[in-house]
Amino acid sequence: MTVTHAAAPVAPRGLEGVPVAATSISDVDGIAGFYHYRGVDPTTFARTGCFEDAWYLLLNGELPTAERRDAFHARVFEAMLMPDALRNALPQLAALGPAGSIDVLRTAISAAGVAIGCRPWTEQDEATTREQIERLAALAPVLTAALYRIARGLDVVDPSPEVGFAANYLYMTNGAVPSPEHVRALDTYLVLAADHGFCNSTFAERVIVSSGADVGAALSGAIGALSGPLHGGAIDRVPSMLASIGDASSVEPWMKERLDRGERLMGFGHAVYRTLDPRNTVLRELAQTIDDPRVALALEVERVGVALLNERKADKHREANIELYAGVVLDYAGVPEELFACTFPVARMAGWTANLIEQIASNRIFRPSARYVGRAVTGR
Amino acid sequence: MTVTHAAAPVAPRGLEGVPVAATSISDVDGIAGFYHYRGVDPTTFARTGCFEDAWYLLLNGELPTAERRDAFHARVFEAMLMPDALRNALPQLAALGPAGSIDVLRTAISAAGVAIGCRPWTEQDEATTREQIERLAALAPVLTAALYRIARGLDVVDPSPEVGFAANYLYMTNGAVPSPEHVRALDTYLVLAADHGFCNSTFAERVIVSSGADVGAALSGAIGALSGPLHGGAIDRVPSMLASIGDASSVEPWMKERLDRGERLMGFGHAVYRTLDPRNTVLRELAQTIDDPRVALALEVERVGVALLNERKADKHREANIELYAGVVLDYAGVPEELFACTFPVARMAGWTANLIEQIASNRIFRPSARYVGRAVTGR
Repeated sequence: MTVTHAAAPVAPRGLEGVPVAATSISDVDGIAGFYHYRGVDPTTFARTGCFEDAWYLLLNGELPTAERRDAFHARVFEAMLMPDALRNALPQLAALGPAGSIDVLRTAISAAGVAIGCRPWTEQDEATTREQIERLAALAPVLTAALYRIARGLDVVDPSPEVGFAANYLYMTNGAVPSPEHVRALDTYLVLAADHGFCNSTFAERVIVSSGADVGAALSGAIGALSGPLHGGAIDRVPSMLASIGDASSVEPWMKERLDRGERLMGFGHAVYRTLDPRNTVLRELAQTIDDPRVALALEVERVGVALLNERKADKHREANIELYAGVVLDYAGVPEELFACTFPVARMAGWTANLIEQIASNRIFRPSARYVGRAVTGR
Repeated sequence: MTVTHAAAPVAPRGLEGVPVAATSISDVDGIAGFYHYRGVDPTTFARTGCFEDAWYLLLNGELPTAERRDAFHARVFEAMLMPDALRNALPQLAALGPAGSIDVLRTAISAAGVAIGCRPWTEQDEATTREQIERLAALAPVLTAALYRIARGLDVVDPSPEVGFAANYLYMTNGAVPSPEHVRALDTYLVLAADHGFCNSTFAERVIVSSGADVGAALSGAIGALSGPLHGGAIDRVPSMLASIGDASSVEPWMKERLDRGERLMGFGHAVYRTLDPRNTVLRELAQTIDDPRVALALEVERVGVALLNERKADKHREANIELYAGVVLDYAGVPEELFACTFPVARMAGWTANLIEQIASNRIFRPSARYVGRAVTGR
């Protein structure tokens, strides 16, 4: 028995630092504390721009002209309309898990892929695949809101052609048209979270779609990957951390106790950033305009947490990440706390869809090898 | 703006030949035409062994003792029992797509993950995760059969404690206890297809689970990856190819015409084997014991196809693969043609589950990098 690649060293664990693709979509500079979409700084764009335009940028490589913008916004609205077979399955899907379960959303996106007729992309034309990709991303907020309302015993609210993506997410969730300030807050979060380089979920969907699998398989797989605590993180746990701390005077003893027990603090640290997470900076500024006592608490948590973490672990500099103020911002916007976890993939669909198109345009199946180190072959 | 890894070369496309893990589970030697599970030759074991024992071998590293065998078979049966929330969702899931859709099975496994309470494995104990892994694999034939019967307007048939895994798959599908010969044929296929080295779907599920995601996310992602034609292939297309050819005298002109048009022939070629696919050898022998006129036709297709392919493309030697005789064998066993595609993941769950356990035991998040080659950053 010849063992395949016995002589070859195994690649760095987790493929850390190994560039597995060339991409024109986005990049993260962890040392400079900077990221971008197609060369555009999202932290600037997020202050005034809307999610659809950031998505257009990620998909097409440039921000839309006024005319193309209108056409794209109209196409996004059309894509939000649910096929009947999908709508009919929602009560049973909602009954599988708790309200706001990201695992139910993953299942619903998989179901949506079947309902809209996704086939292996190798067996259909490019325009069809692209339309399916856009539809699944546009259905993510629709499914999130509908599953939430069903779980709470409420009627499903269909999207309104009168408002944009972020406003529709809030409208479909709460049944009321939100104020411009609330839409602005949600758009800021959605733009900031729309993409972030070659993360684990982006890699997962590229591995899946590289076999020729349909885009429903790839996007449900991406949500699955994002749901892991080592990736999607703790956006929905920061609020309970703040509630558990209570007030600013308790921050230091509370955090020291957790760290002494070897527990992780929520809202700190990032796989790539070794300095301030630029997304945190924007959300902190936005949070500081919000009248919510938790803002002062979060500021104290950031100050104390950064000091404690870097005092205790000098090896790797740590700062607050996108999650620390995200909860306060989403809560202000009108997103129920149960939906924080699902709101992340609603945003990240933008980057995932762009990455699927890029992978398909120049595909090669991901089929690495493994070094066999197990029992020798017997009886041969 | 510093571009990450600008100087680093991109890894080989598709990570071909790059060992990304050390594994003790299985290996494929494409040059020798040999593969194994934990050092055991599955082509020998498949002639007499049953699927559960091959699965036990893959999970535990050795074939079971008589006592452990009984306990494992009993546990597999228990794991086949559906929770109510899952059962209730099946009619709506079946209505999403055609009978036997692998995309519906992917969705149902995702739903099953939620229904049995899968949580990120980083947040539960090892025994719980392992139980969930086994339950999802054991539910694959149950869901495949139930969705098929519902799509055909038939009542769901629950598994019988009286018979094993393969017999139950046929019993739940057809509503009648199969003959020992039919069970033997199905067990042979299931054992042969239970694992096959570090394939694309195995890599996909390891990437997903490496984020801490629950095993439902990983296994539904694996089915998604397998559904791609560049990976899962053409098991359900060989029968229609044989039907289209008609009889042995038409094989050569039919194949030449297809090749002249630049089309792919179904049932030939493999990413790794450069010689006879050892799985094909076992299934050909089994097929030759079956009284079915398509066997003679498939033999002629193999003879002519191998000659034509290697005459036309001298660069890479091609042989028939596992798919050429699989359809004849599965049809003989009593698996409806619509379920051929889903029967592959039912078998492969064995290898996927072993790989999940191995990944979790020594996890590092897969987070490679990408080389940014897009537009320069503006306004900075």
